[in-house]
Amino acid sequence: MNGAQALIRTLVDAGVTACFSNPGTSEMHFVAALDSVPEMRAVLALFEGVATGAADGYARMSGRPAATLLHLGPGLGNGLANLHNARRAKVPLVNIVGDHATYHTQYDAQLQSDIETVAHNVSKWVRTSSSTDRLASDAAEAVATAIGPPGQVATLILPADVSWSEGAQPAPLPAAVPPPVAADDAVGAIAEALRGGGRSALLLGGQALRRDGLMAAGRIAAATGASLLVETFPTRLERGAGLPISERIAYVPELASVQLAGLKNLVLVDAKAPVTFFAYPGKKSYLVQEGCEVHELAAVDSDVLGSLEALVEALGAGQAEPTLQGQSRPQAPTGPLTAETACQAIAALLPEGAIVSDEAVTSGQTLAADTAGGPTHDWLTLTGGAIGQGLPVAVGAAIACPGRPVVAVEGEGSALYTIQSLWTMAREGLDVTTVIFNNRSYAILNMELQRVRAGSAGEKAKAQLDLSQPDLDFVQIAGGLGVPAVRATTAEEFATAFERAMSEPGPHLIEALVPSVLSPRQLRAMPYALRAIESLPRPVGAALKRRLYP
Amino acid sequence: MNGAQALIRTLVDAGVTACFSNPGTSEMHFVAALDSVPEMRAVLALFEGVATGAADGYARMSGRPAATLLHLGPGLGNGLANLHNARRAKVPLVNIVGDHATYHTQYDAQLQSDIETVAHNVSKWVRTSSSTDRLASDAAEAVATAIGPPGQVATLILPADVSWSEGAQPAPLPAAVPPPVAADDAVGAIAEALRGGGRSALLLGGQALRRDGLMAAGRIAAATGASLLVETFPTRLERGAGLPISERIAYVPELASVQLAGLKNLVLVDAKAPVTFFAYPGKKSYLVQEGCEVHELAAVDSDVLGSLEALVEALGAGQAEPTLQGQSRPQAPTGPLTAETACQAIAALLPEGAIVSDEAVTSGQTLAADTAGGPTHDWLTLTGGAIGQGLPVAVGAAIACPGRPVVAVEGEGSALYTIQSLWTMAREGLDVTTVIFNNRSYAILNMELQRVRAGSAGEKAKAQLDLSQPDLDFVQIAGGLGVPAVRATTAEEFATAFERAMSEPGPHLIEALVPSVLSPRQLRAMPYALRAIESLPRPVGAALKRRLYP
Repeated sequence: MNGAQALIRTLVDAGVTACFSNPGTSEMHFVAALDSVPEMRAVLALFEGVATGAADGYARMSGRPAATLLHLGPGLGNGLANLHNARRAKVPLVNIVGDHATYHTQYDAQLQSDIETVAHNVSKWVRTSSSTDRLASDAAEAVATAIGPPGQVATLILPADVSWSEGAQPAPLPAAVPPPVAADDAVGAIAEALRGGGRSALLLGGQALRRDGLMAAGRIAAATGASLLVETFPTRLERGAGLPISERIAYVPELASVQLAGLKNLVLVDAKAPVTFFAYPGKKSYLVQEGCEVHELAAVDSDVLGSLEALVEALGAGQAEPTLQGQSRPQAPTGPLTAETACQAIAALLPEGAIVSDEAVTSGQTLAADTAGGPTHDWLTLTGGAIGQGLPVAVGAAIACPGRPVVAVEGEGSALYTIQSLWTMAREGLDVTTVIFNNRSYAILNMELQRVRAGSAGEKAKAQLDLSQPDLDFVQIAGGLGVPAVRATTAEEFATAFERAMSEPGPHLIEALVPSVLSPRQLRAMPYALRAIESLPRPVGAALKRRLYP
Repeated sequence: MNGAQALIRTLVDAGVTACFSNPGTSEMHFVAALDSVPEMRAVLALFEGVATGAADGYARMSGRPAATLLHLGPGLGNGLANLHNARRAKVPLVNIVGDHATYHTQYDAQLQSDIETVAHNVSKWVRTSSSTDRLASDAAEAVATAIGPPGQVATLILPADVSWSEGAQPAPLPAAVPPPVAADDAVGAIAEALRGGGRSALLLGGQALRRDGLMAAGRIAAATGASLLVETFPTRLERGAGLPISERIAYVPELASVQLAGLKNLVLVDAKAPVTFFAYPGKKSYLVQEGCEVHELAAVDSDVLGSLEALVEALGAGQAEPTLQGQSRPQAPTGPLTAETACQAIAALLPEGAIVSDEAVTSGQTLAADTAGGPTHDWLTLTGGAIGQGLPVAVGAAIACPGRPVVAVEGEGSALYTIQSLWTMAREGLDVTTVIFNNRSYAILNMELQRVRAGSAGEKAKAQLDLSQPDLDFVQIAGGLGVPAVRATTAEEFATAFERAMSEPGPHLIEALVPSVLSPRQLRAMPYALRAIESLPRPVGAALKRRLYP
């Protein structure tokens, strides 16, 4: 068999059975080889950022890497932003980047560039496979590295002649070394600190945010009085009624500071000590307050669940009863459509087992609170801050989990970066409902412009944040890309459209025309911290509000 | 003034008066400072690839660099493919990439990545400006480097605190060193070679492709019998009736080999010795044939026009009469709409002074021949092979040249990469007419799949090249992005729509539904070289056809 055939067979044998692709000439032998390996599903994307983001979403929901197929350096470049997000998400992902034939690179033809250097920016592992007989073992090593732990991006650069030459054989996946559980003395020291009095919190991230991890953390919390914090942008968070109550660290530093105030111990569980997303003039970046001791229970490359269970055992908390989120969901709202009423309608109608891909930067901020007591679901967030991730992640999640409804909540600004995702949803018939909150501005930047104290904005500055003139019409855009779409202008229309989307197979898009929740008037009237409280589960938010505004 | 204000003032004083932007939080002080420098035009893009491609197009037509404004590493990543094209185009371009505040980087917050490394891939010059008092001089150095010669990409990384801190002063542009003219002995040797008999050709690229350079080359050709070849993907080629006859080296190597066959001398004028775009199994990459001597008259960093004029003088060719392209243009066609009839209609109606941004990878191949004898116009091509460049380049060209009609000819596949360009055309009211050839496939890849001898394509392979299921509807997509659009299904409808677009201000889009010119049946019936001949000016193509098929 040729290199491409052995490569795809090796990937499939290692559990990589989906490939999100945007190929060009140098990838044609890979494309031709797809039919020789029936187990590999190839999903075409019309832009590389869709392919890389979809591979991320697939990994979040399947726990297994997908492959991408990208066309030389520029193809990798187009996929780079969502690979950045995937790196931050700590998901396994195998990039296959086609390159010129090895003997062609000396001529510096038009498409040539330094692929390895760009790949290193997002990849733990990068290799240009230089001979057909080593290609399959290189691929197996790429998959093993991608699987981790932690999950990471591995980039295999595939010269065209290495792909097309004969004489290759598939290679097996190298044996994995089990990740270590936290050492007894470290667990003992943390148990002692948690028993020692004073306010303590566990900060959960990464692998700790699935049901088993959350339940173990809930037992620790119940036994010690510690509270459960969740990293600001989790890769995959299981939520809903019946899971332990936790609170996500807020994006807005003023509120995050309140959440972390007065802590004596902060125990990191596959999470970093919290820092602000951006720097702001005159504000600290590091959010842990003086006097708070930071402990690490489980590093990113450890057995996170095993380490949590070791701490449960050390505390004798095996029978402790976690404080669980009760059942509650809002009624479907009526009246004017706003970001808030749209979020209420989603929360009222979200089915059991839904997957929410959340990139509604400002408009979606009440959705987390509204859905906290609803049926259990998974929540996927913007892990690396590079917008344009929500729609591709929804594509990948839907392919990983056929039969589960996927809801992508999007700002109109962020949706535009990778809008080509809609076409792949249509082609593959994916059960993805995209909600576009269209407030006709980069609303987050209206907020940030004030927060960075850049002074009062002039006309040219304001124009940089304005997405009207012309207004974007997502019903037309979606129609042009093959996804049926409706526009909602009242809460009732929105709820009807959402309910219908949930009941019909295939993709749907709902454009929610909403006022900017952060108009200049509202911004002046409303302190940031109070606003940000709305993004927390209700009981937590209420408690924080009392703490902030006694 | 603060860093951002001094930076923008420095750019404007150095002649950089347009900024194509997609800002985020870390760029808010730059955004706020825009109003303090009225001479700077800020053009918002909804995706970074639009901003970088527009800066490229602006530079091609104005000869001056534009700035981009990008948001950290992921923003640069999204702009990377068109920066690759800009690098290959050898245009001046100044990237401003916002970064975290200098004191924030130690925390490795979500958006942090190694910006410098990614920037080096496309930039001759990269610097992270580390203090506010040096920011303006760093910016002046960036502009000077960008201007070259040759034009190149310079990337200035701007930490947020360097931007927002006070105490900056604008800096002047460093004095430029005039580029060297070719040395007398080199010119003399080339003159002797050209006089020595045997077939010779000048291969013109870069700066040699403007009227003055072409006329000088035409005199050399007239005096020596050399033919004029043009690089395959010129940055900006002036064409039309009254300019010297030349032929572009074909993309398809079989035809390029014919063009270069039997040459005794090939004189490079701001061009590289021709190589194939991709490698193909069993074919040579280097296209210059054995026995042909390659001479370099003007390197990329030299005074190209001065060197051509030196050769004119050495040959005593100052009074030689170049063979000029005669006037001829096709009639507006009638009947079925095909790629060929659409190209004829464009050629029949293209106004004097038009700017053509050409990214119609397969469907546009007869357009160059059809327009060769039309009114003079500029032709901008896909310099780096990274598709998604045509629409952004049209945006930048229109901003550089108000009053000149811009025609972007696009394949449906390539248009989708940076489709957000349409919104900027609408917002800025640009006189850009976009023609989308929609044949519902990656037609070039259907051709390439056969050319790389990857074997007969199975169903999965074919699906990777198929853009139907669902069909893309560009009338709806354009409408959703604010550009009025019509669909043409006959040659008459197309001509009517094109004529109307030329006569009305502001952007228009015409979706030309055409059969794939490269259906499997057609591919089998038609040798590549014969097909590719159609992309050459008529008299040249006819001569080549006689040479190929005697």
